[in-house]
Formats: sequence, structure tokens, C-alpha cells
Amino acid sequence: MAVGSGEFGTLHSVPGVRIGIASAGIKKPGRKDVVVFELAEGSTAAGVFTQNAFCAAPVTVAKNHIQAAPSRYLLVNTGNANAGTGEQGLANAHRCCAALAELTSLKSEQILPFSTGVIGEPLPVEKIVAALPDALSDMSEDNWAAAAIGIMTTDTRPKACSRQLEWQGKTITITGISKGAGMIKPNMATMLGYVACDAAIPRTLLQAMVTRSAEASFNRITVDGDTSTNDACMLVASGASGVALSDDTPELNAALQAVFDEVFLVLAHAIVRDGEGATKFVAVEVGGAASQSEALKVAYTVAESPLVKTALFASDPNWGRILAAIGRAGVEKLDVSGVSVHLDEVLIAENGGRARSYTEAAGAAVMKQDEITIRINLGRGEQRETVWTTDFSYDYVKINAEYRS
Amino acid sequence: MAVGSGEFGTLHSVPGVRIGIASAGIKKPGRKDVVVFELAEGSTAAGVFTQNAFCAAPVTVAKNHIQAAPSRYLLVNTGNANAGTGEQGLANAHRCCAALAELTSLKSEQILPFSTGVIGEPLPVEKIVAALPDALSDMSEDNWAAAAIGIMTTDTRPKACSRQLEWQGKTITITGISKGAGMIKPNMATMLGYVACDAAIPRTLLQAMVTRSAEASFNRITVDGDTSTNDACMLVASGASGVALSDDTPELNAALQAVFDEVFLVLAHAIVRDGEGATKFVAVEVGGAASQSEALKVAYTVAESPLVKTALFASDPNWGRILAAIGRAGVEKLDVSGVSVHLDEVLIAENGGRARSYTEAAGAAVMKQDEITIRINLGRGEQRETVWTTDFSYDYVKINAEYRS
Repeated sequence: MAVGSGEFGTLHSVPGVRIGIASAGIKKPGRKDVVVFELAEGSTAAGVFTQNAFCAAPVTVAKNHIQAAPSRYLLVNTGNANAGTGEQGLANAHRCCAALAELTSLKSEQILPFSTGVIGEPLPVEKIVAALPDALSDMSEDNWAAAAIGIMTTDTRPKACSRQLEWQGKTITITGISKGAGMIKPNMATMLGYVACDAAIPRTLLQAMVTRSAEASFNRITVDGDTSTNDACMLVASGASGVALSDDTPELNAALQAVFDEVFLVLAHAIVRDGEGATKFVAVEVGGAASQSEALKVAYTVAESPLVKTALFASDPNWGRILAAIGRAGVEKLDVSGVSVHLDEVLIAENGGRARSYTEAAGAAVMKQDEITIRINLGRGEQRETVWTTDFSYDYVKINAEYRS
Repeated sequence: MAVGSGEFGTLHSVPGVRIGIASAGIKKPGRKDVVVFELAEGSTAAGVFTQNAFCAAPVTVAKNHIQAAPSRYLLVNTGNANAGTGEQGLANAHRCCAALAELTSLKSEQILPFSTGVIGEPLPVEKIVAALPDALSDMSEDNWAAAAIGIMTTDTRPKACSRQLEWQGKTITITGISKGAGMIKPNMATMLGYVACDAAIPRTLLQAMVTRSAEASFNRITVDGDTSTNDACMLVASGASGVALSDDTPELNAALQAVFDEVFLVLAHAIVRDGEGATKFVAVEVGGAASQSEALKVAYTVAESPLVKTALFASDPNWGRILAAIGRAGVEKLDVSGVSVHLDEVLIAENGGRARSYTEAAGAAVMKQDEITIRINLGRGEQRETVWTTDFSYDYVKINAEYRS
């Protein structure tokens, strides 16, 4: 199941960025499970990575490599996360980078590795290395749609977004893809996201831009509260458009940041819409908070409450569960008489209880929709935050009880 | 579903404590939904209550009454939580207390009200008041088993425990009951628990004893992470045994505390075993922690991870999910190479990855059991904590998607 159409429109190629896809047979024979991004010389790359202490070996290696040398290739495999694999996992990630470096006459540090799939199994390095020549011979600027399919695991559909920004007679193209459906509560990044543009952007500025866009998108979604070991989100800039950003181009920087923000948000929402077993796409908006952290605490507590999520699945306006979740979110000295809760435009609770104007029919009508906003006002400040999530369905249990077995 | 036999053996009556049960027809006609405990004059009562900011009206009233006057009656209704009901809810809780006080010629402050059931519906006060004479005429010391049934909501079976302590030729009897299956992550108490004994215990000492026993039992269980609005756990002491505790009887106090600890733990475990949709009873033990809070953080993150819980349901030794949960628990500067994880006696992970000695067959054998211990050592200190939980099954979703509708 998934919410919405999943259509993503035209994917513009990004000059300076080519993509090659191949089959390594990691988990299933014939499945396209290796995706290689090639960045033209002079490109910059920046990323944000999972903060899970048990982060995967490729995350550790990519974080080191991105600092050590200009990145020229991103090497992605699905079917195996190379996480929870100890020293051997690090050695295996290095072996993949070394193999691609040899084929491309680059330094190993110029390759960034990414893995996604089952945790705890040894990475089948030989299979991946054997598939690299096929990936390199497949290189094309027009492979974005195939790449979006190539990085899928339990996803039911590919996720992509493409925009163009006109700037002083030139066109900047921004195209990105993402994947992820379960183990989704990114902390500084998502499962996997790759966004490329053809502006020229210095690495420090690029890092600031990816951090900001990821914070407002991938870092505001949760499917099951389980932060992955492999989250990584990359932003690359090839410079091929001839438009160059710097600290002296604040207007251009702001315009492009806004496009990045939009592309990241579309990609992050696409992950939620394709959340494991999802039948609803739900925004939890918390306003009137005394601090950002308090707004986020309430938003995540409501978004991750199994009881709220099962009520959403049942289209049951069981608003008592929303109040109970707000009440346990750990907001100090919360005056419940100042809290109000809306489902879309329907006021359901105020003054510590059910709103006078509320009718079960009005609440039920909103809950039947595929897309719902739960709007909470804490009545104690000016801070506002939004988190996006899904419901909890039979299929969530089915997918996660059967995965791997 | 539920785990284990649910047998609780003989329930000894507690001299000085009588129980009456009646049908008020709150939710279903004919259902025994009102339980009244009568405490002999001179009894003491102490309790711990939910810390949910949206706490129910009866919780607010009970907390005030227990301070205001010696408690003589506990009035419990199921079918309606009287939570999320604002000012009217408080007035309704007071009206119930006043009605029982009038029938028993006591002050309203000597009645402690408790409600459990659906959140957000007005309490049907008239029905409850009309049932009180029946409850009073039903009073008997032998009604513990019927009371354990009377306080059930989505529970599939009653929960009770009874013990006796011999002390210098006299017998102290301790009997308790509890209820709860969903919205279970008590914070300072559980859904509802009532434990009585016939020792004489001053209120301050009794409060310390109930706090300690609840902390190590009801405050260490989680079914779905959702702290209820109505949690309350009461300990009452009638004094009828002729054994009196005081600050000058430390040995007796320790002996009785140990029995309380055991009774509370049995009652708390019974709630987990009957957790909504539960097919497994799981202990998550975290040792080698640098602090108690760190041990609890890891234990709860693992116990509440939807991915760990669905793997438990599937009897799948998907230990990567356990590592991922440990890694995202927020332990600062966790060195994953020092972490080890056992399933019962089977070492599954160490040095940041799968243990050399581990075989999938050994892990699968443990996961097939109804009762499992996940034993985690963080390798960075001496603190140890245990939390008890269940798996996440189709039936959990079914029960919570269909409840109320």
C-alpha cells in the first residue's frame, strides 16, 4: 500500500552527473542492485549521515572519504546494509571503493560507498566488484528513473523529484531520488537520498545547504521511530550550468536553497507516503510551543504513538488517544486547559476536554481521508514544528514479520 | 492471545478489607463494572498515579482526597475513563464520591475514585450512583477473584496474586489485583492495581513502600509505550493481623517490602503477559551501563521498537534490529565494540557485529519460545535495569483499530 499517486513528473538530467546501473545478484538474481553516480571533475559533494551509534561500515567510510579528497563516484548497493558487521564490514566497504578506484584510475578516497538492506550479513564484495564494469559501461545522464528503482528495498515505488531554476538567463537543474519505507526516523539524514544540481557550489556552502534542507525534510519524518544504521543523504553540485554560488551571491544562494528545500521535502514526503503498510499520510503540526524541542517532542510522541497510529488506520476519530499522547510527551508544567487540537479544520478538543462544537460525524469525515493534518496548539509560546508520519496497519506487521524470513 | 497460563493460585482474603461488586450498565448491560473496596476504620492507604499531564479527573480527585482524610472506600468503574473531560469530569468524579459518602455516613474526602475505559466520553454518573447500594450489599472479604474480573477492560483474563508472611507467630496476608492490556507504559503507576495487607502501616511508611514496589514493577513494563491518563496503583493496610510496622521495625519492614515487591512484580508481569495481541513475554535486561537512566533508555528503546517487536512476533532472530535500536537510544559516545547481546544464553553479537560462535539455528531456537530474555551489556559501567514487554502482532493492530468502533 502507499498513499497518493506516486507520480513524479519529468526527471531532468543534470549535466555533469551520469548514472550507471547493474545487477550484482546480491539478494535476488537479475535484480538491478548496484547504482553508481559519476560526478564530473570539479564537482563538490556534501552529505548528512545517520547518528545511530551502530552506524553501518559504509557510513563510516563515506564520512571519512568525503573529507579526504574530492568525491567523484557514489557507489550504492541494495540487498545488504553492511551494518553490524564490525571490522570485517569496514574492510569490505574499503574493498568496494578500491575496486572502483582501480577501474577509474582514481584514489579510493574519491569513492563514497552506500549500502542498504539486511543488517548483520557479510557484504558479498566479490559480487559487487564483478558488477562494476557493467555499471560503468551503462553510464548516462538519463538514468535517474532507473536509479530511483535501483536503490529500492521494501519500497513499493520509486521516489524522485526534479526542478529547474532560471537565473540571469541560465538554467540550473536540480534532480533527486530517495528510498526508504521502514526503519524510518532519520536523525540528520534519511535512509538514502541523492540530489544533484549543475550549479558550482563550494563544499562548505554545499554542506550548509544540505544540512538545512535535510533538517526541514528528512529529519521531520517518522514511519516507525526506528532510526536506521545506514541513513545518508547526499547533495552534489557539478557546476556544468556555468552558474557559480559563493558567499558573495546571497540572493542566488537563497533562491537555490528554496528549491533544495522543496526537492528534499517532496522526496521525504514520498518516503512517508510509501511507508510500510501506510494507508494514510499524516502531518502533525504543533504550534504555541515554548521551544522548538518541546514542539518536536509533542509532534513525535503523537506521530509515533501506536494507539494514535492504529486509530488512524481504523479512520476512528479517537481523539482521547491524541490527548493522552500529548500528556505523556514530557512537556513540563503543561496546562492542559490551554491546549487545543484540530483534525484539519475541525476543532476536536479544548479546555482539557472535547470541544462543545465537536461532533463525531465531523471528526469521522476527516479521518476517512487519505491525507490528514493533526493540528495541536499548546497555548504557551510561539514555536511551531511539523512532523510527517503514517498510520499503523496489519500490513506494517506483515511486512516486518515476514521480511528476511 | 496471552502468554502463560494466567493461573494465580489461592487468593487469601485480607481481614479488614471487604469488596462489593455491581452492574451499572456503563458500556454493556449486565457487565459487572463497579467495584467498591471497603477499608476498616484505622486502615491506611497510599498510592502512585499517572504522570500524564492529561490525567483523568478521578486521578486528580483521588490524589487530593488521599491527603485530605483517612481513606475508607475505593470506588472503581470500568467502561469509561472520565479522562479528557475537563471541568465537568471533575464535577462528575466528585458526585460519585459524594453519593457513596452519603450512603456510608462518611466524608466525601474519604472516598477515592478510579475510572478506566474509553477516554473523552462523559461519565454516566447516574448509572454508577444507582449501582452503589448493590455494591454495598455485596460486601465480602472473599470477593477478590470477582473484583479482578470486575476491573477488566480489554484484558483477556483477570490478574491477581496472594502471599502470606509469617512474623513472630502471626500471619500477615497480602493480596492484590491489577488490570491493563493496552496504553501500557506506566509512569509512576500502572493502569489499575490494588494491593491490600492486614499489617498496620503508618501512611508515610506505606507511601514509601508502594513507591518502591511500583518503581521496580509497574514502572518497568511497556506494551506500547503509551502512558495512560488513568494509571493508579493503591496499597492499603488494614492492621487487622495485629502486626504493626513503624520506623522501629526495620527487619519486619524489609521482609514485608520484599513480599510487596514480589506481589507487585507478579501483577505487573501479568499485565504484560496479557498485553494486547501478545504472543511473547520478553525481558530486556541492560547491564554494564554507566547510569541507571542510560540503562533504562536502552531497555525501553529496544522494548518499544516496532521492528524488534514484529521480529519477536515472527520468531525471527533478526538481531540487527536490536543493534539498531541500541544504537539510536541516545547513549552518548557509545563504543559499539564493547557491546554484547545475548538471546537467553546464546551470544548473538559482540565487537560491533555478529558473534563468531553464533548460528542462526541457535538464535531461532530461542526466538521460538514464548518467554525470552534479551540480555544487553553496554560494557561501560555497573548499572543494570530490566524492562518487560511483549511482541507486536496482527492482533495488536486489530484490537486497537476496532476498539470503540
